[in-house]
Amino acid sequence: MTRVVVNVMPKAEILDPQGQAVVRALGRIGVNGVSDVRQGKRFELEVDDSVSDADLDKVASTLLANTVIEDYEVVSVESGKEA
Amino acid sequence: MTRVVVNVMPKAEILDPQGQAVVRALGRIGVNGVSDVRQGKRFELEVDDSVSDADLDKVASTLLANTVIEDYEVVSVESGKEA
Repeated sequence: MTRVVVNVMPKAEILDPQGQAVVRALGRIGVNGVSDVRQGKRFELEVDDSVSDADLDKVASTLLANTVIEDYEVVSVESGKEA
Repeated sequence: MTRVVVNVMPKAEILDPQGQAVVRALGRIGVNGVSDVRQGKRFELEVDDSVSDADLDKVASTLLANTVIEDYEVVSVESGKEA
């Protein structure tokens, strides 16, 4: 078993209202110096050896990300170890 | 400016219905061999040098994660480079 991480983030040209809400809230807790926040998704998959990189790319592009508005990256992580 | 990534994942003992929905959908696209999926959030922050690690921890624990049900980790990334 391998742990695979798929990161899905809004494309740079796409507005991210959730991230902007975080930026506005930072002042209320007294933290200045954060100029931008983008919010995306992180998926952790437990995968066995029968699953190829092509399979993982298909899963990420069809099921996990909306590729019209989001970019994704697939990262393999050692079993039991965190990225 | 530094890019900081905050990963927020549901705690291991918390049910993750979004992740389970992904597991069930995998069969429909012909991918077997994925035994578990957990869905969390990924935040990318653009931070200047005035922001300390303690500030980042405060931001993550009070604003980005619900620490009752979620774990978080703060990861510093080289400026302009992706984690």
